Amino acid sequence: MISGSEQHGASGSAKCVIKATGGGAFKYADLFKEKLGISLDKADEMDCLVAGANFLLKAVHPEAFTYMGGQKEFVKIDHDDLYPYLLVNIGSGVSMIKVDGPGKFERVSGTNVGGGTFWGLGKLLTKCKNFDELLELSHRGNNRVIDMLVGDIYGGMDYTKIGLVSTAIASSFGKAISDNKELEDYKPEDISRSLLRMISNNVGQISYLNALRFGLKRIFFAGFFIRGHAYTMDTIAVAVHFWSKGEAKAMFLKHEGFLGALGSFMSYEKHGFEDLKVHQSVQQYPVGASLGGDTSHDPPNEDLNENQSIDCSVYLS
Amino acid sequence: MISGSEQHGASGSAKCVIKATGGGAFKYADLFKEKLGISLDKADEMDCLVAGANFLLKAVHPEAFTYMGGQKEFVKIDHDDLYPYLLVNIGSGVSMIKVDGPGKFERVSGTNVGGGTFWGLGKLLTKCKNFDELLELSHRGNNRVIDMLVGDIYGGMDYTKIGLVSTAIASSFGKAISDNKELEDYKPEDISRSLLRMISNNVGQISYLNALRFGLKRIFFAGFFIRGHAYTMDTIAVAVHFWSKGEAKAMFLKHEGFLGALGSFMSYEKHGFEDLKVHQSVQQYPVGASLGGDTSHDPPNEDLNENQSIDCSVYLS
Repeated sequence: MISGSEQHGASGSAKCVIKATGGGAFKYADLFKEKLGISLDKADEMDCLVAGANFLLKAVHPEAFTYMGGQKEFVKIDHDDLYPYLLVNIGSGVSMIKVDGPGKFERVSGTNVGGGTFWGLGKLLTKCKNFDELLELSHRGNNRVIDMLVGDIYGGMDYTKIGLVSTAIASSFGKAISDNKELEDYKPEDISRSLLRMISNNVGQISYLNALRFGLKRIFFAGFFIRGHAYTMDTIAVAVHFWSKGEAKAMFLKHEGFLGALGSFMSYEKHGFEDLKVHQSVQQYPVGASLGGDTSHDPPNEDLNENQSIDCSVYLS
Repeated sequence: MISGSEQHGASGSAKCVIKATGGGAFKYADLFKEKLGISLDKADEMDCLVAGANFLLKAVHPEAFTYMGGQKEFVKIDHDDLYPYLLVNIGSGVSMIKVDGPGKFERVSGTNVGGGTFWGLGKLLTKCKNFDELLELSHRGNNRVIDMLVGDIYGGMDYTKIGLVSTAIASSFGKAISDNKELEDYKPEDISRSLLRMISNNVGQISYLNALRFGLKRIFFAGFFIRGHAYTMDTIAVAVHFWSKGEAKAMFLKHEGFLGALGSFMSYEKHGFEDLKVHQSVQQYPVGASLGGDTSHDPPNEDLNENQSIDCSVYLS
């Protein structure tokens, strides 16, 4: 997550400093310095995620939406009633952050079963070469081939007494136990679907339990794992709906993969740009961040598609 | 889970009825009837699990123990202060049951990431032929080869601000993303260890969140998945310790895999044996249940090893 740049020093010995956050800001700092002569100015990951989410939820309309049964519904967020909320960022791992206000937050939970698990296990099981290919495979898969359903255990019947229908998953990958099959006998698309469902459902469940614990009525899911992927969102939403008995709703963010970068960009404010004003506009460009721009737009209200992005213009006064 | 037997009718047309519970009582009912002429009298699974757990916690001393850092410590359970508790039964899937008294319970949660997931995924990934072999492999494995640790993300550093040490797992199987390796390049023992840790940790976390939700101070873990396996118990205990910040303790049951069978056996009481008295003794036999026995023993108090078992003798008055 890298955003913005600064030029320091005289023109002859320009020192380029770039704001960056996340593990990569630590892991690749030497590489950036060595190969590109760029110093990474590390911003705290949780600070950045929260700043990015708060910015998006306040400045972009519409930004948050619910997703159920293939239906996307944008949600109007009242700025005076935004906090507290649970922010669930699904990257390689998953962070669950209780956000109480601007800069006021606590990482209350998380899980190590996240996007890295989907992609790592998926790569080993299907020989897929990249994350998008694995996601794409899941579209065409049928998890019932490999998951053990309640009906598989109960001879095709529901277990109504405890509210489990015969099609509910009793055990992810459980059918592989009794099938007389090797890995190669399963279709990669069925494996991908089962994996995606296992992980999305698990994240949805743990998130809901944490929201309940702190009495949070809103859960926003973000992070690179989601990627606007319908089935991922659907599974998370169904999990939250199921475990909360319909009382809670999962919400998603249009700019889900860019919270850290946005927050990192906004952290320039702390470094001397005290009167920084952030305006935003919606344009048909990839997400970009420019420092010292001079344009300002009012946000249009039309329904956006996933390819649209925000363009941040920062004014130095 | 099958226990006990009844003989009905005249000697010439003996009709054998066996109490059974769990999915198998439905799934294999026809097979039992057809091949053995035995009718399965189905007892509700949750009823049986709870009855079995209550029986063990009241009648067997010592039955429950904590497990941390390789140390097993038996816990004295005050019969008057047993309820409420959370019973977590880890079979193919996982059921989490809030038990408020004899026959008073509710299945409040569960997860589809359980023993079936460990064994199903493990079979596909390692080509192991049975569950015990997979568990045995995990003994010798090192999950750090394949799990993405906090230190892997943060260039070897802790992320102290949010309480994550560098050796904490950030993403199970996450290292497989960036390693230039195929499935065959990983050792089966490392894969097994990573899987076991992923699942045990996840069950521990979801269990703790449910105990917290209902204010339950005791969590008992049982089910065939555990099998007295040290590393499984250790991971579950560490998860509960970590997520509860030391406030909750995972407890295990010596007869973890037999709750359903025991409860099923005890359900004979409902079928006319109103004055049934259940006595118990500890002997060096495999778990057995006999109807109409005539021996009674006081429970000895010595520390039992896993091979020891209870022998139930039922008196018809």
